[in-house]
Parts: sequence; C-alpha cells; structure tokens
Amino acid sequence: MDIENINKIINNLHENEFDAMVLAEIENINYISDYHPTSFGIAILKEDSIVFAGAMDLELANKTSLIEVKEFKSLKQITDLFEKENFKKIAIEETLPFNLYSKLKGNYEFHLTNVLDNFRMIKSREELLKIEKATNIAHNSFKQLAIRDKIEKGFSEWEVSYELGYLMRENGAQEESFETIVATGANSSLPHSRVSQKQLEFPTLIDWGCKYQDYCSDSTRTIIKTEKQEEIFNIVFEAYNKSIKAIKPGIKACEIDKIARDIIFEYGYGDKFIHSTGHSLGLNIHEKPTISKKDETILEKDMVITIEPGIYLEGNFGVRIEDSIHIKNKANVLGSLKPII
Amino acid sequence: MDIENINKIINNLHENEFDAMVLAEIENINYISDYHPTSFGIAILKEDSIVFAGAMDLELANKTSLIEVKEFKSLKQITDLFEKENFKKIAIEETLPFNLYSKLKGNYEFHLTNVLDNFRMIKSREELLKIEKATNIAHNSFKQLAIRDKIEKGFSEWEVSYELGYLMRENGAQEESFETIVATGANSSLPHSRVSQKQLEFPTLIDWGCKYQDYCSDSTRTIIKTEKQEEIFNIVFEAYNKSIKAIKPGIKACEIDKIARDIIFEYGYGDKFIHSTGHSLGLNIHEKPTISKKDETILEKDMVITIEPGIYLEGNFGVRIEDSIHIKNKANVLGSLKPII
Repeated sequence: MDIENINKIINNLHENEFDAMVLAEIENINYISDYHPTSFGIAILKEDSIVFAGAMDLELANKTSLIEVKEFKSLKQITDLFEKENFKKIAIEETLPFNLYSKLKGNYEFHLTNVLDNFRMIKSREELLKIEKATNIAHNSFKQLAIRDKIEKGFSEWEVSYELGYLMRENGAQEESFETIVATGANSSLPHSRVSQKQLEFPTLIDWGCKYQDYCSDSTRTIIKTEKQEEIFNIVFEAYNKSIKAIKPGIKACEIDKIARDIIFEYGYGDKFIHSTGHSLGLNIHEKPTISKKDETILEKDMVITIEPGIYLEGNFGVRIEDSIHIKNKANVLGSLKPII
Repeated sequence: MDIENINKIINNLHENEFDAMVLAEIENINYISDYHPTSFGIAILKEDSIVFAGAMDLELANKTSLIEVKEFKSLKQITDLFEKENFKKIAIEETLPFNLYSKLKGNYEFHLTNVLDNFRMIKSREELLKIEKATNIAHNSFKQLAIRDKIEKGFSEWEVSYELGYLMRENGAQEESFETIVATGANSSLPHSRVSQKQLEFPTLIDWGCKYQDYCSDSTRTIIKTEKQEEIFNIVFEAYNKSIKAIKPGIKACEIDKIARDIIFEYGYGDKFIHSTGHSLGLNIHEKPTISKKDETILEKDMVITIEPGIYLEGNFGVRIEDSIHIKNKANVLGSLKPII
C-alpha cells in the first residue's frame, strides 16, 4: 500500500458521507498500513489515520506502519477520538465482533460499507506480483514433492502435508496460507478433510497454498488411477476448463459459477458439487467476490479468483481441480503446474 | 461434551431468561456439539438444539455431532426458526460478526451473555486429560529437539520451528495450536516475533504448543548464555515461580498478575513487561479469564491457565518463561519440561 492509495480510499469514504472507518480485522489493518498486528489492533481510517497497537506490538508497528501508531490502552481512546472529532457517521467492517461494536457505539452511527472491500477486490501491480510469486513457490514445491511416487510408496497424509509445507518454506514461502488438505481414498469425499495418519491411496486430493509477503496462493490437484476416478476427473476437468475459458472482464461471478455447475449437472452429479466454483484471494484466502450462484458481482481486470469445481461421492471418493486466476482481458492461470498430475 | 452438560448450559440460559443462544464461533460449536465446522456453522442452543452445517460439511457433521444437524442454506432458516418458536430474548457471543448480527436481528432482543464462557472456564475431566496430553506431547517433542545443540550448530529459526512441528505430529499431535514462535537474538524482544530464516544465537525464545483432540497446549522456554541474559532470566524466573506458588482457588486473576508484575517492577523492568501474566486455554489458545491487571475473575478449581512473565529489551533481547497450569487445591504445572533448558 502507498499513501496515495490510502488517500483514495479515504476520499471514497468521504464521498459516501463517512467521517471515518474503524478497522479491527488484521488483514484490513495490514492492507491500509503495511503493519500486520500479531494478535490485535484497531485502525481509524480518516484524514490523518491512526493505528492503535498493543504494547507488545509497538516495536513492530513503529517499524512497519505507514500511518501514525499509538499505543492501545483502552477502547475509551477510540470513543474519545470519535467524540473529539465530532464524527457522526462511521463505517465498520462486516467482521467487527459484536462485543467491540457494543463497546464502541455512542453518539454516532455505525454502518457497514463495502468501500474497503471494493478496493481490495482490485489488486495493485505489487499485490499481483506477490500472489503470483506465492503460486509459483507452491507449484514448484508440489513438483519437488513427486506425489505419485509418494502414493506408490505408501506415505501418509500428514507426512506429505508436512513435506509440502517444508518445501514451500525452503523455497521462500512465509507459511502455509491455510492448513494443507491431503485427503486420500474416502477422505477425499470431504471437501475440507483434516490431515490424518492414513496411508495414501488413489485418489489423493491435495489442496494447498502458501503466503509470500502476506499474500496467499491456493491450488488443488487430485491424483487418480482407476477408470471410475478418471471418468469423474474428466467431468470436473471439463467444468474447470470451460469456466476458465469464459472468464473476462464484464461477466458476472454467478455466470462463471453457472457454467461449471451446469456441466457437472448435465453429467448427473449436480448434487455432488457441494460448494461454490471459486472465491477471490489476496491477503485473505477467501475474499470477495465469490464465484457462486448468488454473487452478481461483475468481474473486473486485476481481480484474482480461484476456479475449483469438484464432485464428492460420499464414503467413496472426491475430485477437485483448482487454480488461481488473474483476470486480464481473459483468464491468466497462475503458476506452472498442469491440472493432470 | 455429553448431553447432560449441554442440558446444564441450556438450563442456565433459561435461568437467565434467554430463550436460546446463537453460536457462530467454531470452537463454541465444537464445545456444545463435538462437531468442528471446517469453515462455517451456526448452532442454536435451545431445548432441542440444532446445528446448521454447510453442504460440504454435512457428512462430517452427521458423523460427529451430538445435536441435530440441518443443512445451512440461508440465514432465513435461522430467523424463521426464531419467529416460529416465538423467541423474545436470544443470547449471542462476543465474537458474533456485525454482519451476521445485522442480518439476524428481528422482533427479538440480542444480548451478550457469559453463560457459555463461564461453563468453558471450568474444564471437565475429559478436557483436562486432553490438555495434559497435548502438553506432554509438546514437552516430549521439545526434549527430542535438543535445542541447545541446534543453536550451537547454527540452525535457523524456521528449521527449528519446522522440526518441532514435525516432532509434535510424529508424537500424536493433530497440529500446532498456534504458529510456533522461534525468536533469536534481537527478535526475542518482540513477544510475537514471526519465524524467519535467521540463524540461531543466544538467547533463543521458543513459544510453542500443539492440539490433541482439538485441545491446546502452550509453553515458552528461553535458552540463554551470557551473564546479562542470565540476570534477566532470573528475574523472570522469580516472577514465574512466585506467581505460580500463589495460585489457589479463591484468589483473583489480577492478584496473580500483580505478584508477577511487582517482582519485575522491583528490579526496574516494570515497563519492559508489556503483556499480561497469562490467559486460560482449552479449545481456544486464549480463553477467559486472563491473568491480567483488570481481570477480577476469582480463580476456581479445574481452570487451566498459563503463567508467562517476560522482559523485553527493545532491539536487544527478551526472555519469557511459560507453563500451563491446572488449578487444583494449588497449581499443578502441566508437562515434564523444566523451566531451565
């Protein structure tokens, strides 16, 4: 983030008649200040923005923040500031915990706003480079993992998740962007299966990502063997390919979801595709817009979304293929890993 | 959790004139249902409690939940249920996101309550065993790590954090209970330092824990070498020992904090102890009560708290010693790892 962009957001808040915006979500604070609170922080976005950092974060905040840092002592600092500046209408985040809301409210109105979300949807050049770098690290690490070989040799889910994490860090990642999913056999029919000591078999579904300078990557591969697995894989792959092909600025998120969903439905597996087709990503692993039935957001240049259709046969197995996509004039699939492993 | 305990919580809600409680925090849902949502869930705690799980979690929820499971489709299901049952006063969590609150509110009152928090403060026999097991795994893994040797050999922060994570999983942990802190040299003066590629030197501060069946452990050791480091260590160690010795049912949380804080203050480092003396833990790594200046909660039998005094000399180094304690008639320090490594 640079000061110029912070000012654009503040101007936008003012155009929407907000005096200020209060931020408590770590990634929002990180986005507007470059300071990543380690456990808690509150930022007030206004003409002369301030971030309140806990005593134990002060050293870090002073080193990294683009905006003024003050030590957080109590919420009264925040409400006093609102009173002193005579704020009337204050924007808040969707995620603001009720507890904070109830302690902050006073002689001013709080309103949800999508101003910041809208800014975060469109990635800057710098953000795009970080997401691309994260994806490249994740993909290169996956190649080094040599997963088919590991399945044949009978490694366990957690051994593979662990080695992949190790490789990503070795290759420059900061950490996993979410808990790696390695789901083998019947476990793969649970879209968010948690890693176990189970020995790998076919199919094995791996959903993984890493962070590079706080920005996430997100990919999924399913390694198959039998004909039945291949049949399901090919349906998912068709949904993946055709929805990616349709991506362009101007199309609605729900239209992309419909393309993937219709294909899977036509093959008779409509009720086995039990999640959205994708989501945006950036500082958070899940951002807006989502690529789902209900999301009517119009896709724009420099959004980054995932496409991840899947079919889950309960108690049997599941297949998902996922890539992250930078929307240019058409879809630019990030990373270098082929969908078929 | 068993049905009998769920009923106790519900009776307590009714005694506080609540018709029901709505839960969206993953660990609260886990606590009352034994089902751990993988990304999102809403539970309604009432005479015949229900948990709404996303389509992709249904298989898992049906396998694990003690209470009725329904598929979550929209928030209208929840508000319809409130209307149908003619609920007037509904309890909510402190962490309920404002967005959910604003979509759920209707012809009924929402109130924050500490009923569930109060139950979660006192651990059952089963919960205590899980926390103890997690601590034992974490401590045994730390011993296997042979940290002094690794410092002498010049390993990096992340290599050590990674090996410790590996060992904990090898020894039966589910995952880290939080991102392991390995902070060496000047990094140790940041209480929540993030792991880097920096080569280990003295002192090295390690704050780590694992989960066993969803329950957390939390420990910190600082490995020192020089006389100055030892001088600071001894002050922290005295604060650690004396505050642990004072723990007993009936004493206030803030009184324990004061004991640790006064000792560090007397040695002239009062302004270098920049966090609370401790916190409770269980399904979450941070639970209530906190062992802090302001928390007047009276400690009771079967609470589990950490004691973790520290001194942080900005730009130079920091020392923290932390253990988790099961409060019986006096403090029962969990795990088998001595404070001096």
